[in-house]
Formats: sequence, C-alpha cells, structure tokens
Amino acid sequence: MSIPSLSVHGGRIAALRVQMKAAGLHALLVPSADPHQSEYLPEHWRARAWACGFSGSVGLLAISGERAALLVDGRYLLQAEAELAGADVEIVRVQNSRAPDADVLNWLRPQLPAGAQVAVDGDVLALESARHLAQGLAQAGAVLRIDLDLLAAVWVDRPALPASELWEHALPEAGATRAEKLAALRWRMAALGADHHLSAALDEIAWLTNLRGADVPFNPVFLAYVLVDEQRCRVFVGTQRVNTALRERLAADGIELCGYGEVGAALQSLPDGARVLLEPARVSAALQGRLPAGVQRIIAAPNPMQLLKACRNAQQADHLRAAMAQDGAAQCEFYVELERDLVPAKPGQGGLSELDLHGRITACRARRPGYRGPSFDTIAGFGPHAAMPHYSATAATTLPLDGRGLLLIDSGGHYLGGTTDITRVWPLGGAPNDLQRQDYTRVLKGLIALSRLRFPRGTMAPMLDAIARAPLWAEALDYDHGTGHGVGHYLNVHEGPQLFAQCKPQPEMVLEPGMVISVEPGVYRRGQWGVRLENLVLCVPSGESGFGEFLAFETLSLCPFDTSCLALDLLDAVERRWLDDYHATVRRRLAPLLSGPALDWLLTRTLPLHALPPGLNHP
Amino acid sequence: MSIPSLSVHGGRIAALRVQMKAAGLHALLVPSADPHQSEYLPEHWRARAWACGFSGSVGLLAISGERAALLVDGRYLLQAEAELAGADVEIVRVQNSRAPDADVLNWLRPQLPAGAQVAVDGDVLALESARHLAQGLAQAGAVLRIDLDLLAAVWVDRPALPASELWEHALPEAGATRAEKLAALRWRMAALGADHHLSAALDEIAWLTNLRGADVPFNPVFLAYVLVDEQRCRVFVGTQRVNTALRERLAADGIELCGYGEVGAALQSLPDGARVLLEPARVSAALQGRLPAGVQRIIAAPNPMQLLKACRNAQQADHLRAAMAQDGAAQCEFYVELERDLVPAKPGQGGLSELDLHGRITACRARRPGYRGPSFDTIAGFGPHAAMPHYSATAATTLPLDGRGLLLIDSGGHYLGGTTDITRVWPLGGAPNDLQRQDYTRVLKGLIALSRLRFPRGTMAPMLDAIARAPLWAEALDYDHGTGHGVGHYLNVHEGPQLFAQCKPQPEMVLEPGMVISVEPGVYRRGQWGVRLENLVLCVPSGESGFGEFLAFETLSLCPFDTSCLALDLLDAVERRWLDDYHATVRRRLAPLLSGPALDWLLTRTLPLHALPPGLNHP
Repeated sequence: MSIPSLSVHGGRIAALRVQMKAAGLHALLVPSADPHQSEYLPEHWRARAWACGFSGSVGLLAISGERAALLVDGRYLLQAEAELAGADVEIVRVQNSRAPDADVLNWLRPQLPAGAQVAVDGDVLALESARHLAQGLAQAGAVLRIDLDLLAAVWVDRPALPASELWEHALPEAGATRAEKLAALRWRMAALGADHHLSAALDEIAWLTNLRGADVPFNPVFLAYVLVDEQRCRVFVGTQRVNTALRERLAADGIELCGYGEVGAALQSLPDGARVLLEPARVSAALQGRLPAGVQRIIAAPNPMQLLKACRNAQQADHLRAAMAQDGAAQCEFYVELERDLVPAKPGQGGLSELDLHGRITACRARRPGYRGPSFDTIAGFGPHAAMPHYSATAATTLPLDGRGLLLIDSGGHYLGGTTDITRVWPLGGAPNDLQRQDYTRVLKGLIALSRLRFPRGTMAPMLDAIARAPLWAEALDYDHGTGHGVGHYLNVHEGPQLFAQCKPQPEMVLEPGMVISVEPGVYRRGQWGVRLENLVLCVPSGESGFGEFLAFETLSLCPFDTSCLALDLLDAVERRWLDDYHATVRRRLAPLLSGPALDWLLTRTLPLHALPPGLNHP
Repeated sequence: MSIPSLSVHGGRIAALRVQMKAAGLHALLVPSADPHQSEYLPEHWRARAWACGFSGSVGLLAISGERAALLVDGRYLLQAEAELAGADVEIVRVQNSRAPDADVLNWLRPQLPAGAQVAVDGDVLALESARHLAQGLAQAGAVLRIDLDLLAAVWVDRPALPASELWEHALPEAGATRAEKLAALRWRMAALGADHHLSAALDEIAWLTNLRGADVPFNPVFLAYVLVDEQRCRVFVGTQRVNTALRERLAADGIELCGYGEVGAALQSLPDGARVLLEPARVSAALQGRLPAGVQRIIAAPNPMQLLKACRNAQQADHLRAAMAQDGAAQCEFYVELERDLVPAKPGQGGLSELDLHGRITACRARRPGYRGPSFDTIAGFGPHAAMPHYSATAATTLPLDGRGLLLIDSGGHYLGGTTDITRVWPLGGAPNDLQRQDYTRVLKGLIALSRLRFPRGTMAPMLDAIARAPLWAEALDYDHGTGHGVGHYLNVHEGPQLFAQCKPQPEMVLEPGMVISVEPGVYRRGQWGVRLENLVLCVPSGESGFGEFLAFETLSLCPFDTSCLALDLLDAVERRWLDDYHATVRRRLAPLLSGPALDWLLTRTLPLHALPPGLNHP
C-alpha cells in the first residue's frame, strides 16, 4: 500500500471531523478491523491506514473534535513514530492493541461532555468490544453509536470487495476431508448444547471447506461467513466465486454456497428456540443484532473450529515437515545469493538494500514444489531497522546493505503442505561487536530453553513464556512482544488459541499435541540493532510417567543459525549439544534438496561448533 | 485434634441426615470455613473434621441422602485416603479445594430432583461462593439455603468461641505504627472511591492493629472484624480481650473496640449512600446480607490491606533477616541432637519416631530470642510418609526413624521479627539410592533456578512457576502443589496475594519489592519417598536498564542443605556456585550464633562442594 503524504491524511481527518460535526458526534473511533476480525485486512476495510497513514497491521485511530490519537502496542511504537512524525496525531502505547478499550476510554473521557456521542462502525466492531466501549462510555455519561458510516461520504475511492475465484486445498495435504471436519464440528456443537453455529472467522471457514482464496494479502482466505446446523452447512461467500465442478464437490460434501450479503437474512430467519453457538469477540456487533429475540446464544470462547484447526493430524504433520525442508533449502539458496551479491560492483553503486530481500527470498521459495506464496511481508531490517520488530522496508526507508551491522530476516511461505515463518540474524560487513554477540547468544539461549522444554499435558502455553525470557532477564534484557504464536496449515501465519506471552492465560490456551507454535525471543536496542531468532515447533507427546502425561516440542524449521555471532562462552554444554544436534538435522534433511554452492554453504554452516572454520566463529 | 473412630463419624453423618430430612433438604455441604475465610480454624468451626474425620486443613464434605463425598486437592489425596479408609465417604479430587464449587455441583447434580434444597451455613460461606453455588444449583433446578444451622442439634459438645487475652506486636519489629497503617489504608480507600471498608480477614486486622492473639493454632490472630471509615476504625473483637493499658493505646491511635457480635448491627446502621469496599470472596454471605439496601458495594479484589501487609518495609526486612538467622541456628542445634539420638540404646528399643520431631525442633527454636511459637504443625515424614506433602504424624501413624530412608522436615516458627517456613531432606540409615539422589538434586535445581531468577517488575508470580518445575519436567517428574506461597510478618504462614503456581494469574499477583514468598519444589513417589526443599525469599529491586525495572529474590532462610544426597553430576557450574555461595552465607550468618557441636556441624555442612569430606557426598 502506498503511503500518501502527511497533509493528505491531515485532510482526511479534517474531512471526517466535518462529518462528525454534522452527525452530532464528539468522537470517532477507527479500528483496524473488518467484519471478520481478521488480522490482515482487505483494502476495502483499511480505513485506519487510509485515514492516518499508519501502515502497521494493528492500531486504533481515535478522533475527537480537537485531537487525534493512534493507540498501538510496543511492537509498533517505533514504526508509528516514524510514519506519523510531524502529523497532528498523538501516539498512545497500549498493552494490547487488539483490545485497547480501556486505553481509548482513558484518552477520550476527559474530552467528552455529558451526553457526548462516540461512533464506531458496527459492521467491523466485535460485540465484545461494543459492550466494553458502551459500558465505559456510559460511566462517563457518553453514548456509543454503531449505526453510522461516516467514511462513505469521505472515502470516495474506497476499494471494492474482493471477488476473485477460490480454489481447493485438496487431500492429501489438507489432511482431512470436509465431511470429517464437519462431523468433528457438529460433535463439538452437540457437546456444547448448540444446534446452530455461526462463524465469521475466515481461517476457520477456509479450514472447514478446504477452500483457499486471495482476498487478503498473505493470508490465503476469502471473505465468508458460515452457518452450520444439524443438517445444513451454509457458506456465505458469493456463488460466482467457485467454479461449477468445485461447487458440485462442495455440495456432495454437504456444503451449500450462498451470497456473502445473505448472512444477515439467514440469521434473521433462525427459528425461535435455536441455540446458536458464537464467539462474541469475533462476530460483529451489527451482525449479532440480526439474531431474532427468540434465539438463545451459547457462548464458547474460542469457536470449536479454532481448536480443531490448531491440532495437526499425523498426515498434516508429515506434509508440514516436508514443506519445512523445502523452505529451508530455499533459504540456503537465498543466503548464498545474498552473500554473493552483497558487494557492489563499484563502491557506492548498485548493491542490495533491504527492499530487495522480500523479492529475492520469495523467488527462491517460488522454485520449490508446493509453494503458494509468501505468508507475510518479509521483515528485513538492517542495523537500527532490525530494532523495529515489525519493520517493513519501503522505498522511503530502505537502507543499503553496506557497512557493518546485523541483518534480521523474518520471512515465511505458504506451501500446500503448510505455512512457514522463520527468523535469522546475520552479521554483515565484518565481525559483530561483543555486545551484539552477547545479545545474539542470549536470544539463542532463550530459543533453546523453550525448544527443548518438556512439560505436563494440560499446561497453558503462556505459563511457559518465562522459560524463553529467563536468559535475557538475567542481563536485564527483555522484549516487548510475545514469545510465540500459533501458525496455520496453509493458512494464516498467526492463529490461536496457543500463545506464548506474558498474558493472563485462558483455559483454551492449553497446549495440545499437533499444535504448531513459533518460538521467537528477541532483544531490540533502539537506534542500534536488533536480534530475533525464530523457529516453528510442533507440540508432540513425550511419554507418560507416574507423574502424568508429558509433551515436548519437535523443531520444524530447518535453516542454519549464524555461528559467527555467537559468544560461545555463554553457551553451556547442553546448549552447545542442542545446537550441534539441530545443525546435524538441518544438514541431513536439506542436503538431499540442494546442490552446488548452496549445498557447500549448508555443509559449512552446519558443522559442529568444535569443527567450525575460524571465520564462522570469533577468535 | 484427636481422631475418633470411623463409626463415630458414620454416626455423625447419619445424625446430620436425620436433620436434613426434617428440614426437607436433599443435601448439606460442610466446608472447611469460618466467618473469616481463615485457613486454620478455631475448634468451634471445625465442623467438617468433626463430621467426617478428615483432619487436613482444606476439604469440603458433601452429604446427600444416600452418599457422602470429601472434595480435596492433590496435596491431601493420600492423607484423605488414609484417614477415610473404610468409611462410606467418596474421595473426589479437585483442582482447588478452596473453590470446589464446580466440582461439588458436578457431584451433586445427578442426585438432585427438581426443586431440591441444598444447605450451607451462611455464616461461614463467602458471598462469592454462595453466588456460584446458587447459580449452579439453579441450573439444576435446585435451591441454595444459607439460613439453616443443622449442626446445632447434633454437635452437642461444640467448643466455645475463643476468649483469651490479646497482646501487642510492638515497634520496632512491627515496622510501622497503627497510625501509619491506618493512613495508608484510608489513602487506598479514597483512591478506590470508598468511604467505608469492611474486612473479616484475621491477618489483616492483626496487621492493622499491631495486635496478636491465640485463637487459631499456629496463626497468631484473633477473631475480629474491622470497619473503617474516614473518622473511625472499629474493631469488633470483644472489649474484655484487651487490657486497659493496651485499650488506651489503641484508642489514642484512633482504634475503638466493640463486641465481636456487634458487627452485624454496625453494618445495618450504615448511612444511605455509603460506599463500602469489601472482598466478596472473604466476607460471609450472612454478614453481607446485613448491609442496608441503600449502601453501594465497591468490590476490590483483594482487600487493600492484603497488598500493604505483603510488602515489608526496610525495618521489617531487617528484623526478618535477624529472625531467619536465629531460626537457622536453632535448626543446626536440632539436627545435631537428631543425629546424636537417632541410634537407640538397644536395637528395637527407644530411638526416635516422626512424632518426636515437632517437639524437639520447637524446643530448639524456643531457646532463641524473640521466638513466639511454631508457625504450623511440623511436617516430619520418614520414608513413604515423606511422599505425603502435608503429612502430619499422629500416634497411630508415626514411624520409627530406623532403617534406610529419606526424612523430610518442613517446619517454621514465629518470631517477633517475622515468620519462618523451611524444608530440608536428610538421608537416614545409610547412603540414598541413585534415584533418590536424582530426585533430590532435581528438586534442588528447581529451587536454585527460581531463587536466582531476575525478572521485570510487573511480572505476575504464577508466570514464574515453570522456572522451578522445568528441571523436574525434563525427567517427566512434577509435583501436585504450588511452588510457593506468601508468608506473613509474625502472622499467617500462608498469605497472599503472591503465589507461585500453575494457576490463572490475577493482576494482584504481581510481585512487588518487599514481598516474602516460599520456593518449594518437590517430588513425591507414592509409597516410597518424597523430596521437598524450601527456602523463603524476599523480593528485592535488581536494577533498571533501558529494558525496564528488574526485580530478584534474596534468599532469607539460612540452613545447610544435605549434600550427601546430591547427584553432583546433575548440577552445572552455575548451580554449584549458587550452592557454595549459599552455604558460605549460611556459615557467615549462623556461626556467631552457635558453639560446640552445633558450630562444628555447621562448619562441616557448609564447606564448599569441592572440600566436602567423603561421607557428605557420594563416592
């Protein structure tokens, strides 16, 4: 998305203030949201970015008569400051930018007279947020309105809804048939006492239907709702988006296609006494308003499909392992090309910059079987840019890869066999300094500690977060983001319910065999450098003793770690062995997929620590 | 408390069933509770133990027309099975025996016809529990009654309420004056928008008034309520329990004494519009029923005094350190006497048994300045008894300390300077076997890992629990209790809000400088042996960096660990150094307080690992 100048955004906020005044509003909130509570938004719903120019994936814009504020969490702070420098928009740091209700109320309340009206688009506001906001505003004597669309008059060139053709994610990689998935879902619905289930979650619908689409950048999902009852499964997606042959296969599996806009009417016609299972945090307030009064809502957090989807079966896990090997081989080829092309033909001419890397690593992945596209916009940050955890280079910001510094590359791909997400850090332009080595090694210690952890079945993932942080905490270091997120199966690169973070754990965050989760501790020194190292791991059974059933992690990601950045004296014997074992596995799994310079690179980069050549470890 | 035979308890449950039938009840719940939601109960309120014979400190008895069940958590499972063997009472394991509402509902529901009535004594049932129970019963079409006292007719020799004289916990050890504490409390009340605060928590009232009493075994508290407003602080305790001089000092500090039974009337006469701060989990349903309708309840969880009390000031911390040294010296003397007296004069005659140890260790502590009594009933378990985390020897169960086995001693004392709680394990009768050594060493690794942890300010204590468990989890070991609890200042040995456990952390569980908490991992092999090692630690500042403010723990408990039980090869260099440093500190702090054989014992037992004589470490 191109970023217009600050004055353009200033004008948009001013135009919205005109609309606010006309509607008698004291404030307008513009969340990063669509009717599906998606993480990545189709252009049609990128109202917040359109209005203020902050391009990060989460952040809430609040506009009052006199002031404007962007509420973002720690991950986006540096980016927001950079993108909004000079704009008349305050930046407010919040703990969780997906649930900034309390923070936005704190910002708003002093500005609101009694009886003030505050608007949010009810089509994109989740019921849960609507409740919190309405309650909080009521305490300040103010009122929430969700029935106004202020953008319509101002956003004249608003992009249309996507309408491209969907395709099938078929067996064997899909791992289970639609019929099997529907049966599992109906079994869970029955167990929860529900006879209907409404989901607006795009990744759940893609999972259930074994369909994929291109409505959203990076997430292979499509705009849809699903309404399941004991007989029918209606997917509201637009019948014209699925070809006839596929539509017939869907029908044979008991899945009817309906128009995207027909979901409201379908809800309105639910019979009295229907028991509808839904998740208030992920269905819009406007849509839930369509449920007839005689319907009983059954709240389950999260939707049952979220857990079903999160747990890979053995078939899916095997395809994922194969995809990880292809992904690792692609990275080896990329790194060899990167090293080769780093030195410009003449000083000051040519050479690479951050912005080149997404295309290059994507091209390497694209040569691999089963590849379907990038799973997110590559984060390639050099030097001080690596200190911005969610930095994404633009033409305006891209740094040339010359001089001495750490290059952080966080990238991933979608394969038919699964989705990858991996981060490595490489020193460019000469040996890293001692503090860089220490940071790098402590981050690796955190990754190793969590990756090799064994733990009792029933443990909530956040309870393990401290294991990865402890080696950093020991040196008064920390990172302002979670340690790991779930990853979908040729689906969203961020999925729940599993999560490593210093958050209040919920019962649904219990780790289960088959879950895929990232392990990605980091250290960010603002204006200097950043280190993050990330692997994906698979939760697997690890034996049963008189003390219960235990689980562990199998590391899925396959790519060497740079060893020249290690402070070897900070690694203990167990950690060195883990690293040697990991590199031996990487060598064994990737060597058959490589040849020539990339194979040579792999063989050198996966030597045991004691056998590394001098250049790959500090003297 | 003596334990009558099973038939006596069978008769009591039968007598209660007669009362239930007469009152038209389908079930009766008898919780471990008093009107103050105390952990240790005055005899007057030990109805659950009286009715069924289970002597553990927590557990809920449920009696229906045909069945009876005791709901206990993992800590008490073995003890419950032992004490109720042969009785007609089912044992139901629950996650949290202080909040077994959901579990008891699951047990009850299938037995209840529509319209069934279930009774609990409203005087001892917290409002929060009453709400949960009433809701849960309503879902089954049943009704909760809290207005009946079925015990009155059956428990004819019920002990009277305690009435002994209270005494003062004076400065300097108290650390702060009543006026200072009242001012801090009123400041918190104002910040929360309250003009009245009711607390029934005995330790809070003892803390606020700098008074102590002997109403409850081990906890130096007294039965009371406190009602604080902007002018008055009324303590409902019975005026006759405080002598004239002390009563005048209390009055001078703004504290009025009223009769224990007058609290209900005081609540009833609160003015319309009063804003009363209270914690629904810790005030009884019956008492809260006395609040007039015009009063507004302000819920704060937990009571503000709980956090004020939990954070020691510098003066209190200094007195606590001195008390810990006296406590460690007393233990050295006890262990020397234990080793001396272990061998009976003639085989099979005399010698020591588990039951002797509480008296002996208490006698050693009693010789120390400032000692006020044991902080809990010593847990001294030998061999298989050490596998019962909360075992307490009785005449019927006590094992002689002969033969080979591990002896676990968990004991503590109250001193004017603070409260101690420490666990050590010693091999008796010859060298421990390899698995015992491994268990012991892994438990020690867990203790060391958490004791030496540094962490960011703002961390909720439960998020650190996994740090102590990871070394055990690695071998598929675990323990079925929390890793640590808060400890009061010459007050209850268990206090909140701080807690290390695999629980859902609450915001109030954030660790703050000045908090005292235990670190006590364990491994229990049923029928074989048990290992638990426990120190108390003080939360202290640990520097500030660009990554925030950090905290760490200062180990307070001072007593050598047995080293002959170590599997030295399982300790890494960092752990060995921690142990050597700890023993050097123990030696430096305790040596000035000891002489003769106890000093010799200390000097030998605190040698660095590399200098230990052969007997103190395995070959």
